[in-house]
Formats: sequence, C-alpha cells, structure tokens
Amino acid sequence: MTTRFAVLGAGRIGQVHARAIAQVDGAALVAIADPISAAAEAMATKYGCDIRSIDAIEAADDVDAVVICTPTDTHADLIERFCRAGKAVFCEKPVDLDTARVRACLQVVKETGGRVMVGFNRRFDPDFAALKAAIDAGRIGKVEMVTLISRDPGAPPYDYITSSGGIFRDMTIHDFDMARWLLGEEVETVMAQASVLTDPKIGALGDFDSANVILRTASGRQAIITNSRRATYGYDQRIEVLGETGMVSARNQHAANIQFADAQGFHDAPLLNFFMTRYTAAYAAEIAAFAAALRDGSAMPITAGDGLRALELADAALQSAQSGQAVRLVASAQKVA
Amino acid sequence: MTTRFAVLGAGRIGQVHARAIAQVDGAALVAIADPISAAAEAMATKYGCDIRSIDAIEAADDVDAVVICTPTDTHADLIERFCRAGKAVFCEKPVDLDTARVRACLQVVKETGGRVMVGFNRRFDPDFAALKAAIDAGRIGKVEMVTLISRDPGAPPYDYITSSGGIFRDMTIHDFDMARWLLGEEVETVMAQASVLTDPKIGALGDFDSANVILRTASGRQAIITNSRRATYGYDQRIEVLGETGMVSARNQHAANIQFADAQGFHDAPLLNFFMTRYTAAYAAEIAAFAAALRDGSAMPITAGDGLRALELADAALQSAQSGQAVRLVASAQKVA
Amino acid sequence: MTTRFAVLGAGRIGQVHARAIAQVDGAALVAIADPISAAAEAMATKYGCDIRSIDAIEAADDVDAVVICTPTDTHADLIERFCRAGKAVFCEKPVDLDTARVRACLQVVKETGGRVMVGFNRRFDPDFAALKAAIDAGRIGKVEMVTLISRDPGAPPYDYITSSGGIFRDMTIHDFDMARWLLGEEVETVMAQASVLTDPKIGALGDFDSANVILRTASGRQAIITNSRRATYGYDQRIEVLGETGMVSARNQHAANIQFADAQGFHDAPLLNFFMTRYTAAYAAEIAAFAAALRDGSAMPITAGDGLRALELADAALQSAQSGQAVRLVASAQKVA
Amino acid sequence: MTTRFAVLGAGRIGQVHARAIAQVDGAALVAIADPISAAAEAMATKYGCDIRSIDAIEAADDVDAVVICTPTDTHADLIERFCRAGKAVFCEKPVDLDTARVRACLQVVKETGGRVMVGFNRRFDPDFAALKAAIDAGRIGKVEMVTLISRDPGAPPYDYITSSGGIFRDMTIHDFDMARWLLGEEVETVMAQASVLTDPKIGALGDFDSANVILRTASGRQAIITNSRRATYGYDQRIEVLGETGMVSARNQHAANIQFADAQGFHDAPLLNFFMTRYTAAYAAEIAAFAAALRDGSAMPITAGDGLRALELADAALQSAQSGQAVRLVASAQKVA
Repeated sequence: MTTRFAVLGAGRIGQVHARAIAQVDGAALVAIADPISAAAEAMATKYGCDIRSIDAIEAADDVDAVVICTPTDTHADLIERFCRAGKAVFCEKPVDLDTARVRACLQVVKETGGRVMVGFNRRFDPDFAALKAAIDAGRIGKVEMVTLISRDPGAPPYDYITSSGGIFRDMTIHDFDMARWLLGEEVETVMAQASVLTDPKIGALGDFDSANVILRTASGRQAIITNSRRATYGYDQRIEVLGETGMVSARNQHAANIQFADAQGFHDAPLLNFFMTRYTAAYAAEIAAFAAALRDGSAMPITAGDGLRALELADAALQSAQSGQAVRLVASAQKVA
Repeated sequence: MTTRFAVLGAGRIGQVHARAIAQVDGAALVAIADPISAAAEAMATKYGCDIRSIDAIEAADDVDAVVICTPTDTHADLIERFCRAGKAVFCEKPVDLDTARVRACLQVVKETGGRVMVGFNRRFDPDFAALKAAIDAGRIGKVEMVTLISRDPGAPPYDYITSSGGIFRDMTIHDFDMARWLLGEEVETVMAQASVLTDPKIGALGDFDSANVILRTASGRQAIITNSRRATYGYDQRIEVLGETGMVSARNQHAANIQFADAQGFHDAPLLNFFMTRYTAAYAAEIAAFAAALRDGSAMPITAGDGLRALELADAALQSAQSGQAVRLVASAQKVA
Repeated sequence: MTTRFAVLGAGRIGQVHARAIAQVDGAALVAIADPISAAAEAMATKYGCDIRSIDAIEAADDVDAVVICTPTDTHADLIERFCRAGKAVFCEKPVDLDTARVRACLQVVKETGGRVMVGFNRRFDPDFAALKAAIDAGRIGKVEMVTLISRDPGAPPYDYITSSGGIFRDMTIHDFDMARWLLGEEVETVMAQASVLTDPKIGALGDFDSANVILRTASGRQAIITNSRRATYGYDQRIEVLGETGMVSARNQHAANIQFADAQGFHDAPLLNFFMTRYTAAYAAEIAAFAAALRDGSAMPITAGDGLRALELADAALQSAQSGQAVRLVASAQKVA
Repeated sequence: MTTRFAVLGAGRIGQVHARAIAQVDGAALVAIADPISAAAEAMATKYGCDIRSIDAIEAADDVDAVVICTPTDTHADLIERFCRAGKAVFCEKPVDLDTARVRACLQVVKETGGRVMVGFNRRFDPDFAALKAAIDAGRIGKVEMVTLISRDPGAPPYDYITSSGGIFRDMTIHDFDMARWLLGEEVETVMAQASVLTDPKIGALGDFDSANVILRTASGRQAIITNSRRATYGYDQRIEVLGETGMVSARNQHAANIQFADAQGFHDAPLLNFFMTRYTAAYAAEIAAFAAALRDGSAMPITAGDGLRALELADAALQSAQSGQAVRLVASAQKVA
C-alpha cells in the first residue's frame, strides 16, 4: 500500500521534502500546492504530480498525508485544518512562535486524534542517530553531561531575524530538542547568557547573535549549548555526551575528505556550509520515518508536544538571558508529559 | 533533449547504474535486458521501463546509449555490436582480460567512430576527484610520488578468483588506472612482488592475495601500490600524492562519523565495508559524466584505451612478480598513445 | 649570574619543581626544606643541595627565590614572610581559599614590593601557549566565545575534597584563570550549575562533581566551562576560542600516538591520565618563565592578583550555583585592576 | 653502581647523547673527547666532566663505556680499539659504508667479546616502540605487510651527499632497520626504484632523491618503503603494519597540537622539522637502554650485526635500482644469523 503525499509550499524546503518522498519506497507525491510559484510547476513536471489548491488537497480522497512547508504563521492553522480533515501531518518546525497558540493547536490534535510529526531534522542525521543509538545501547552508561556546539556560517537576512522569534526560538530550538532527546530526562532549569558580538544591527533588531545556555534536569544531568551566528569555517554542528562509563561524540562534516600539506602546515576543507547540504541525509530519513510510522501505525518519532517543549525552553532561555536568573520549568514539563 | 538508456544485465551493478540514470537530469531509462532475472522485472516496475532482449535494444530507435553490466567475457562483443549499431556505450571494466582481444575491440571502436566509456568508478569519487582537481590546479606543484593503499575487506569467492584474471587484473587494475591518472605521465617500468598470506587456497588457485607494485614514468615519477585481499577494519582506500611544493591525500570513509571514548581509549567506526557503499557517489557521478559527454559531444572521460593501458600494467606486474625483473612498457605505451 | 632557589616542601609537586629548576639555564637549587620527609633526602642527593629549615632559608644569603610547595593553608603566611625577607616567591596555587586572606596577603606583597608569581601551570602548556600566541597575533580577530572542556580522570580522595574548598575553588579555578587569560577582558557576570552525578559521597561532603559555568565580560564576550570529576578515557583538557575571523583550538594529548584498526573499528590510546604527565612541559616552562622574569626584572607572568581574581570567580560560581542567579563582579574587578 | 661514560665527539649528536646520559639514573658522564671543539669545553662545564684525548679515554680506569659520535670513517676503527680496551661501545650508525669493513669489525667484536650497540634511534621512539610492543603482544596477529613512509624536510648539503654513501645507505638504512624489526623475519629479496626529482644537482653527484623499495621475506611477508629528500610540510615519519587480524600505525608528530579554522578550512601545524626535535625522546631512550643492558648484562638491543644487515639491504636496493632486477639476499642473511 502506497502512502500518498501532498506538499504544501514549493519553496526551498518543500523541494527538499518532495525529493525525499520520491526516494521512499511506498510513498508517492500526488500533489503540490503553491498558487504563485514557478517552483510548483517544476516540481509537478519532475515528479509527475498535480498542482492543486490547499482547499482541494484538504478535500481530496487520494491524499493520505500532507507536508507543511508554508510560512511559520500558517503552521498551526494548517495542522488543525488537516487533522480535522483526517490527513496525517508532517510540519516543519516550529508549530508556532507563541506557546499559547501551540497549546491550542495541540488541543485540536488531541481532540481529532490527529497524527502529527514535527520536523526536527537533526534527530535523523545518521551520525547523531548513531550517537543516540549508542547511548540507548548502554555504551556510555547513564548520561551525565551533554555538550552541544552549534554555530551558523552566517546570520540570516535582517528581515528574517525580525520575524524569527529571536535566536533562541529560531536557532537554539534545534539544540533544545537535541538536548531533551539526549539527556533522556526533561529539563527543569534553564540558565542563559546572550550577547551581540558579530553585528550590532542584530542587536538593533532586538536579537542576539551569541548565546550560551545551561540546562539541568531533576536528577542533576546537565546540557550546555553554545551558539554563534558566525562561523567563518562553515556550519559547525557538534555533539558530545559524557556518561558514567565513557563519552560519545559526533564530528563535523567537511566539504571534502582530503588534506593538503605544505610549508604552512596541514589543511583540511572547510565544513559543509549550508544546512541543506549538511543535513541532506537527515531530511530524507525524517520523511522515511514519518512514512514508516504511518504505514506501521506506530508512534510519531517527534510529536507536536516535542515542538512545544523545545519552544518552552527557548522562552525560558530568553527570560534567563534578560533577567539573569535561572528559570524553572517544572510545572510546564508536567503539563507536557 | 533526453538521452535514452538501456541497461544490459539486471544484476547488482546493473541496478546501481539504473539508479544512477534515474538521478541524472536529462537521462531516461527506457529498457532493461536480462532474460532470466526477477531483478529485471523489479527494475521495470520501479523505473517504468521495458524489459527487452539485447537484439531488440540493438535494433531500437528509442535507445541512444547502453550500459553494459553483463559478464566480463561478453563485454568486448557487446561493445563492438553496439558501436556498429551506432549506440553510445558505457561498459563496466574490464573490456576483456586478454589484451589482444581488447586491442581488436578498440580497432572496431575506431573504425565505427564509436563512443565508448569504461567504468573506472574511482576517478569519480568526490574525494579523489577533489584531490585530482587540486593537483591540476597546481596546489602541490609537479607530481613526484604517488602512494596508493588499497585493501579489500575480504577475498572474493574462490570461483570468482578462478575467472578473475588474478589480483593484478581484477583488483590492482583500479590502482593502475588511478596511478596513470595521477602521475600525469605514462608508466614506463613496472616492478612487483606478490605473495599468498591470507589464505593458502588462493595460492592453490594460482593467484596471490598480497602485492606491492612500483611504477615509474620516463621522467622518474613513481607510484607505489600496496594491496591486500584482507583488511579486517573495512574497505581501505587511500591515496597520497607528493609534489614539489606539498602533498595532498584522501582519507578513508568510516561507517559513521562518531567516536567513543572509554578506559580502553578512543574508538572510531570501521570503514565502509563494501565497494558499492563506499563508492555510491562515484557510481552516480560516472553515469552523469557519461551522459554529459554524450549531451555535449565532448571527449569520453575514460576511454577503452584507458582500459587497455591499465590491463597492460596488470600484465606487466604479473610478469615482474613472476620473473623478479623490472618490466618495461615503452613500446606498448606508444601503441596506445 | 645564577638565580639560587630553595624549594619549600619535598612532596610530589616540590619534586616536579626541583626537576624544572635543574633544567633551567642560570638556575640552581641550593636548598630543600622538609623536616620529616625522606623525599627531601632523595632530592638533596640527586641535586647536590642542602636540607635546611624554613627559618634558615629565610635568613640565608645564598637564596634568591623560594618555590612554595607546602600545604595550601601555609601559602599566604609564607608569601608574606619571604616577601619581607626580600626573596622572590613562586607559590603553587591557591594563595588561600579565602579571598579576604588573599587580599591581606596582596597588601603585604604590595607594601614590601615583593615579587610573587602564582603557579597556574596551564598557561605554560606549549599547546595552550601556542593558542594564546595565535590569538595575540590576530589569527582569529577579536575573541568572542571561549569553550573550556576540562575533566579529571577521577575524583580526588574524600579527605582532600573536604579541605579543597570545593570543585569551583579546586578544579574550575584553573579554567577561570584560562578564561580570563583568553577572553582578554575581565569577567563581569558568572552563571553556574553544579550537580552530584558520579558519587553521592561527594555530595554528602558538601561538594559537587559536575559543573557548567558561563562567564560574560562587559563587552559581551562569553566563556563556557564544563567540568566533571570523572572521565574514564583520561585527563580531558580542551580549549577552543571562536573569534570574528576564525577559531583556534587545542587538542587533547593521548598516551601514545598510535592507532589500531580491527573489525571493531579504529582505536586510539586513552588520554594521558595524570596532571603531572599531561603538564610535564608546562611545569618546566613556568619555572623557566619565573627565572627569566627574575633575571630580566620584567613583570611576573602571573601575579598574586591573578590568583585572587580566579578565586573571586570561583566564589561567584558557587554562589550562582546555590542561588540560581547570575552574580555580577564589577566592583571587585575594579578593585583588582 | 654507576656506569661511567665518555663521549667521543662533541658535535651536534655528541651533545644529544651527553644530555641523554645526564638524564639516565645510574649513568655518569666522566669525559668528553674533542681536541679542537669549543663544544667540548661547553659540555665539560655543563656536565662537570673532563676533556680528554681518545688515547687517555682508552687507557682510563674510570670509563666503562664510550659513545662514538665521530665521523663515519672512524667508527669501525674506534669500535675495534675500544672493544680491545674492554670498554662497552655505543656507536652512531653506520659502522661503516663498506660491508667488508663492517664484517671485519664484527670479527674483532666477536673475538674480543665486545659489547657493542649501534644507534638506530627510531626503534626507541615511544610511538614506534608502542607499535612494536602491540605487534609482539599479538594485537594484529601475524604480520603481513609493512608500510614505511619516510621523507626528509630537505636534502642534506651537497658535500654531505658526496660522502654519505647515497640515499639508500644514508637515509633508507633507517627504514631497512625498521622493516627488519617489524617484519619479524629476515628479508630475502629486494626490489627498488630510484629517481632524481627534487634537484638535478643530486643526480649530478651520483645520488638519488626519491626512492621506493619492496622487501620480501621467505614466507612472503612484504615491506614497502617510500622515501623523498623533500617534504615541504616537515619531517614525515610514518609506519603502518597490516596483520591477519588488524592494523597498527604510528602517526606523524606536529610542531604543535593546535588547529585553526577559517574560511579557507582547518589548519594544523607542520610536522616537527628536524630529526633531533622529532626523535628527542628516542635519543634519550636508546642511551637508557644501552645503560640498562650494561647494568643487567643482558643482550644489546641493537647489535653491530643489525647494522651490517641494514647495510646489506641498502647495497641490494642500490643494485636493484641500477639493474632493474630483484636482488636475493639469502646467503648473506645466513652469514649474519
């Protein structure tokens, strides 16, 4: 039995997901929705699918699942709408930048029995997945300390920053999700510092470009996140987990696996510089995991509740950076559970 | 304009090439030939192509190029047949295990004006291609010494060994091609040693499992090749080129990019263990290069003459290993040029 | 002209410094003080020096400088005493565990015009020194974010923990000094979290074994420190500094520079497991730097003021870990300046 | 009981050995011989030893062992003379550049019952020693293939080349010794190629600057050696040994253990550039091993026979490079055994 997909939004990330669907056995792309985009026509030609309106997809009998790649402020509405229409939903993160709106959306998901997966792609990176599998297999014993070093090659455009919700909700949110996933226990306390070091204009827009966060769970496990919007050497994405019997870490990925040596020394290529190149395999794997969960009727690998929890950590980090105080999340964590 | 492909042979490597064709823009798979294989039916279903006889493909108006993935002893015949039929030909290495047969085949290619590419996939590995590009860009100055370390995870089945032409023609031949490509000058002298160290049965079959070869060009550049049929840690594929101003090297590829640390030390994953996994990107890139050469009318990236030359080096290495003398190749090299 | 040294305390660290003195050109060890130790006799034999009382050394005409390697609670007294006696002083860190006592001691140093160096050995590690030199040479532009990963192979004995002043004053204090050195600007705000994860007995003694700290300067530069009292894979000592144009990092040191590969993967040696082995070169270099400063009359590379400032950061971190609030250090920093 | 040393020759390598003697427990430097050198005076001052003539040292009652650091053409004579005088002898390699002279010298050693160690320092490098210990401990099973990559930063002065005996006797000889040590079986066959690639003047002097050698033992084990007189990136010294169950390798040593990253990529320091810096620890360890063998009365770790055997391999390699034929060494090997 084939799972029939529609992709909502033919932009950059919509194309990534369409390509992923084409690679998954038992998945077919039947429709793309994007009223104004030439990209939609290119995708229709390439994958032999229809261009339809969102309304038509909502009403279609031949669509089992939608992949939401539209602007962030439409996510929650579309999730609710397609849950009510009985379609499974894969939604790019975030569900919304406002936790109240996310909670309302989750209520609809719950009432409709909707099946919703949120796209935290990093959990599906083959290296990070191997790292997690090793932890789950007991290779390092009980997890104690998680270190996440995560730096973008450069800041996004100013107008994106304005609508992004700020560095914690836009960039660190991936690390919050990874930290929750790796700590194996909900975070209870958040401490954060944030500065403007790379570009004063980012500060003028009310955002930060450099941040450090300490997360702590009830049993005292800790995660540390270090972020910058500027890494001249590429897209820096490292994870290290210390456990009682050992450590496991995932290395960066270079643009090429070759090395020069000359009188100045030994030279390796910069890192892969773009999130879509760095996480190509992860994007394919997350759609495959979504399709597999639909096929098997098993639990969604990442739920909208995971999206909410990461957003709460982002809000808490911002509050801590502004107040200079540790922010406790216990009550909220219980709600999510 | 789309280049229309037929794949001859639906075995393991035929499937690899079919997948590659499906990924190349402007290429289409229209037919698969394999009279007895269930694999042919699976490919026909997956790629929406016909199953046809080789005769039918030879006569077809809707086939521009064939990819020969049949047994080695059919390669030369099929190359000649499809050159005469006016189809472009991509042929898995080797053209034949006998240099006289290869020369006769080349004569037909020449007479028919045939366009033939031989599949030395390693030249298309992204890392090796980056290494070569760096040399061509002058990053290490004039090439002096090439080091090729190439070890298989394990020996092939005994019946394969019997028909393989021996380690030099079956395994080292890839290194001979790489050495020619990297030295930038034809090889003039070959010295080799070969032993049986991993399995006496291989010796009983008249073959070796461990070999070292020194190649030397007219200007004194040298390449050294070290081969073994057994590397417990995976498929070991390294290249290092020393030039007048520096060195460039390509590293191995591990099964995962993670590292453990414990009281015993630091532990990395074994190497990718299978040539198809290790060279996935190379197989895709070589078909893309073939399609691009057809589209542009440009020279074939690797010709049947390259195949002949590598085979001559293999024959010379075997002769040197048996005689204990350096074997000179000058006359033969001139014939090829 | 030779600088004549006396070493006070013939224990483990006293022996390290005696060996260092023996390697420094223009330095001579003339006396060792340790009334009860067989180690003192061994040192006297090995280096051909006298065993004397501290009183005798204080009064001696033939001693230019003392190296204080006695228990921590004697440091401040001995510094004052030898400053008053007109001897140069090298003192193992810390000056004292109590900042008030350190300030009083500094007052005596100031009044006597004493020349005092405090032994933060890590600044003299050849790799860390090369990293600092690179920053000072402008290789990464303005410093933005410092990452210090510092883990001990195992916790010290319980009775040591009891008198150590706690993890921040005993272990993290080295990282506080490194952070100050590398940030190039005084720390203004400290945030910390601390837990007991490796051994509940450490918690019962009122200490922690796992800690993370964020430091922030007035201009927004940040340093992050991650500490654990247990790293099964050896003594983990890494530094990474992100600047506006690049990053520079110092790697760990393994017990041997060899690698195994087998069917389980690739295996490197554990890290050097003991601070004296890991920092052998640093201990020699710090005494050489002290001797050079005495010879040249130049400024002490690390002053007692540096010792005070690191201790203030340790106190602030403890306060932050206990209160959950960021602790500001501005006024204190001004006092130190 | 202290072993009393005299060093013959106060040049660069003589100073290295004097420093090593000073570090060995139970060893004392009592005399240095070098009639014309200011270096001798400096050493006498630094180590508190006498300056004496070689005759005086030969006759001295207070000298147990000599370290011969004089020009190569005096080595064999001095070995014979001090063996006859009943002193133990440590001699820098080579004993002589002529195998007949070496054999004659060995005869004297045998007749006098002399205790002679030849200084192949690389066997005492901590990494190479760890690699060998791992092989001996069975970590990789039976040894199959040895790879030695050995490149000098630059060629020696022309007048040194003239008297050096050529690249095989001067440079590759270290690799011949390492190959013998690691193969665990005597070499039976030698094949070599040599060229002039870095400097035509070297060719004009009758020498080569680039060479590759294949060695083979009776059981078919092989070693491959690749040499160049020019490596712009430093002193390149790598070893890799493939065995039936795994591989073990020793990495190069960089001038510093730090890494830069910037828009051009990741940059490591060049290699240590000078044999004395690279092999500092090895020089100290070999003298310690010599002293230990004298103290214990145990076998010399490296004998003059080892020196002869390496020289025979060098001669065979030169002959192979000139003749283009494999050179067999069986009879000679039996003589040595």
